[in-house]
Amino acid sequence: MPRADFSCLARLRVRWAEVDMQKIVFNGHYLTYIDTALAEYWRAIGLPYPHGYVDRYGADVYLRKATVEYLGSARYDDLLEVACRVARLGRTSMTFAFEIYREKEDRPLVTAELVYVNADASMQPQPLPEDLRRLVAGYERVAPSS
Amino acid sequence: MPRADFSCLARLRVRWAEVDMQKIVFNGHYLTYIDTALAEYWRAIGLPYPHGYVDRYGADVYLRKATVEYLGSARYDDLLEVACRVARLGRTSMTFAFEIYREKEDRPLVTAELVYVNADASMQPQPLPEDLRRLVAGYERVAPSS
Amino acid sequence: MPRADFSCLARLRVRWAEVDMQKIVFNGHYLTYIDTALAEYWRAIGLPYPHGYVDRYGADVYLRKATVEYLGSARYDDLLEVACRVARLGRTSMTFAFEIYREKEDRPLVTAELVYVNADASMQPQPLPEDLRRLVAGYERVAPSS
Amino acid sequence: MPRADFSCLARLRVRWAEVDMQKIVFNGHYLTYIDTALAEYWRAIGLPYPHGYVDRYGADVYLRKATVEYLGSARYDDLLEVACRVARLGRTSMTFAFEIYREKEDRPLVTAELVYVNADASMQPQPLPEDLRRLVAGYERVAPSS
Repeated sequence: MPRADFSCLARLRVRWAEVDMQKIVFNGHYLTYIDTALAEYWRAIGLPYPHGYVDRYGADVYLRKATVEYLGSARYDDLLEVACRVARLGRTSMTFAFEIYREKEDRPLVTAELVYVNADASMQPQPLPEDLRRLVAGYERVAPSS
Repeated sequence: MPRADFSCLARLRVRWAEVDMQKIVFNGHYLTYIDTALAEYWRAIGLPYPHGYVDRYGADVYLRKATVEYLGSARYDDLLEVACRVARLGRTSMTFAFEIYREKEDRPLVTAELVYVNADASMQPQPLPEDLRRLVAGYERVAPSS
Repeated sequence: MPRADFSCLARLRVRWAEVDMQKIVFNGHYLTYIDTALAEYWRAIGLPYPHGYVDRYGADVYLRKATVEYLGSARYDDLLEVACRVARLGRTSMTFAFEIYREKEDRPLVTAELVYVNADASMQPQPLPEDLRRLVAGYERVAPSS
Repeated sequence: MPRADFSCLARLRVRWAEVDMQKIVFNGHYLTYIDTALAEYWRAIGLPYPHGYVDRYGADVYLRKATVEYLGSARYDDLLEVACRVARLGRTSMTFAFEIYREKEDRPLVTAELVYVNADASMQPQPLPEDLRRLVAGYERVAPSS
């Protein structure tokens, strides 16, 4: 059942400027779409980024790795749904999983995993705050792995 | 004689992601191209933006108005030249003129004027520094109007 | 009374990737925002772009001139409203007026005018279709000038 | 020895519009940078994209998967080098490896692998043309795996 395990869903419409001469969305723009879902996720757990996170924890999150699989192509004016959940809570990192759907379709166009590291101002990784683990656990439908 | 009055010239190649389904560069991207020429202009007069300007004058420049005329269309992989000069030095504002050419062509694809205002940290317009007027006058081939 | 004369309103939220080191939206992105409102306009009058227009009239519209005034600054996560109307119907061109507001505010952050030309496949300007004039007139709250 | 195994090198300067409020390049833009290096690669082996490829083989290449590791951060005005090579030639797919450096530095800011599939007009994967294998093999310093 698509999307069912995903706690957060962002919606957007593909813009003209995002579509290339192949008449499909340029590959890098999916990371922009994913970033809008991430913003909704932080808002949903009560840590609107950046202030909600940075002010509360005195730390910031940095993207360490992105893996994106392109299974289909979004086109101009498509209504997209970007599903987001935390798939894993590590010691200093957390992994977000994403699936991007065309509205009303059951097979995702794009799936992705993004690994973020919690780090202090000098960019040194720091353990994830227990408070953050609690907020995520309280929000997710499926418990993140560790 | 095209470009001859322009003191500063930036070069770039049109990227795949900047071209839309009409097979031409999306209109907003020309402001990005223009911004790269502006960066070269600040560098050329010895005020690399932002630090060169902000640290020296304790002020910043803010875009107030942009007028862009689209006379032709840049296409994927085109080599473009973005010509830039200061056309006018007002009391608190300065007007940059731009012409964007396809390499080796004599008629511009795009012409533009951007009006920037010199302002303090509270966004109040401030007279252009005399030092800035001197640097611009020493660099321009054609004296800016006032 | 802001927005009241504008027949069409598009909403969007400012994305992280659209905000620069000055913590404001980069100037070129407002043309992307404007383009999303334009898409809603074409949809609203029954000519979803591009097919609705191109297939019906055997012509296309090309941007000829954009004038953008920057009166304020949109910031990350702002909810924006892009108001759009046709301000003028010329012989071969039509002028769209835009105002961009932060949600619930009365003074626009940006105002703009974009002049589009109706042209055939060889880019020669052609008179605006009478059918298009009728559709626009039937939709606008304030009659466009001519 | 960094870059030494990479057959193709593209250079670019980070634009103002590509840098976010964290004062670093937004993560999705690295895929745009990578795409400019890919364009140089196709040009270098005599198949300038898209026509060089599409017209010669009656097929096109589609991105299937992108893996990007973020090891450091590019900043405004940085001069970057995007190194590119073909790391693997499969039956229907080819894997490009990329490393992005700040000029004169020895440690990459970003490494990436992009898997492209050769497919016909109906998007069905097709074996890589032997001619393409030959062109790649003749250009690479290090033989791609298979």
